[in-house]
Amino acid sequence: MTTKLVLVRHGQSQWNQENRFTGWKDVDLTEQGRAEAARAAELLKDAGFEFDVAYTSVLKRAIRTLWTILDGMDQMWIPVIRNWRLNERHYGALQGLNKAETAAEYGDEQVLIWRRSYDIPPPALELSDERWAGNQRVYRDNLTSEQIPLSESLKDTVARFVPYFEEEIAPKIRAGKQVLIVAHGNSLRSLVKHLDGISDEDILKLNIPTGIPLVYELDDNLKPVRDAYYLGDADAAEAAAAAVANQGKA
Amino acid sequence: MTTKLVLVRHGQSQWNQENRFTGWKDVDLTEQGRAEAARAAELLKDAGFEFDVAYTSVLKRAIRTLWTILDGMDQMWIPVIRNWRLNERHYGALQGLNKAETAAEYGDEQVLIWRRSYDIPPPALELSDERWAGNQRVYRDNLTSEQIPLSESLKDTVARFVPYFEEEIAPKIRAGKQVLIVAHGNSLRSLVKHLDGISDEDILKLNIPTGIPLVYELDDNLKPVRDAYYLGDADAAEAAAAAVANQGKA
Repeated sequence: MTTKLVLVRHGQSQWNQENRFTGWKDVDLTEQGRAEAARAAELLKDAGFEFDVAYTSVLKRAIRTLWTILDGMDQMWIPVIRNWRLNERHYGALQGLNKAETAAEYGDEQVLIWRRSYDIPPPALELSDERWAGNQRVYRDNLTSEQIPLSESLKDTVARFVPYFEEEIAPKIRAGKQVLIVAHGNSLRSLVKHLDGISDEDILKLNIPTGIPLVYELDDNLKPVRDAYYLGDADAAEAAAAAVANQGKA
Repeated sequence: MTTKLVLVRHGQSQWNQENRFTGWKDVDLTEQGRAEAARAAELLKDAGFEFDVAYTSVLKRAIRTLWTILDGMDQMWIPVIRNWRLNERHYGALQGLNKAETAAEYGDEQVLIWRRSYDIPPPALELSDERWAGNQRVYRDNLTSEQIPLSESLKDTVARFVPYFEEEIAPKIRAGKQVLIVAHGNSLRSLVKHLDGISDEDILKLNIPTGIPLVYELDDNLKPVRDAYYLGDADAAEAAAAAVANQGKA
């Protein structure tokens, strides 16, 4: 049996637009981001998807993208599960800084290391920092203090998301359920690494465009039976991915 | 320990506006309905509510009301559980008919019996009727054929919602969780009957206004420690309830 799994990266957020490191900061979508989400809904509806369940993070830019998709597809009734393990990679002390400014100060190379190295996390937040996630009810009430990150490498993001995928989401796919995951650049990159068996090095070069549904066709072992593909215009997906890759250059 | 439970009836729907029997028909909110939901969010935010979990039906007028509330309160991250047991009472073969026209044909009295008797359901749908709920994926995939109603009295609605409340929702309230329930005139009436111990006869006279949060303060046995109250202006709540009561008169 082959089952389709769809991944969508949330549309443009306010801090994407301002080119700032976002991480767990709960910024909203821009108007463009909302339009991207509506376009994703159209693509999925035209392709005839009928989802059984959706997963998203606890960050509003992903939740609003999901809401817009479910609304546009007239599938608002399907179960939605929010979990912090689908959150964007935590950017530590860089959260809130402008990517170009950071690059000008530290150099393109250092920023690229922080953004794209597999296991080197950015500088950690202090516990006393007002940006510490434990100050927010969503994390204070649902995570242990050890689970609340001070900074994350992509490896750390993989370590907290992929086991959740295997335990909670994979059984539903194996049961033939059509699953929609709406999440973030690095949580989705973690999952793509896992599904496609991409190396620690190569995953750094992979850029997932915002708002364009990425479709996996998986066998019973959750191995792709063909290359994953974007819905809609292929050139548009490539251009969007290139735009993401160019962020963070001074 | 006293725990607050908040009930909100969805804002005006397209068929409320057209004065038609709605039941399980999945009509959307009107602009006024969306504004009512936004106002409910303001009232709840001003009163400082911090919800832990929300329950709603699988009907979009309730889901959109809930989304609008969570968005306005900046609490989009809380878990949301959708269940058909919170749906509006199923109106059988009356679904889609204009209330005033039905009243003109059958008489105010017969319509009032169908709308307000505790245990007399409206005429049943035929299984071959295109309005039969089993034709929709949400019910076909999640209910047994015996569970899919052809018509419901208020007693039937109580019988499918109150046990769910006791089994799924009540334990969370007892654990001190702040619960938000966004549902429909008759599913909420079922719950109010249960919480306040209202008789089969008196519940017929109770009208819950749309979009105005109704707050219960419950002890450990889920008994109200004081009368439930509406947030905001008391006169506005009373006027809104009276407007609901006047629907269905010719």
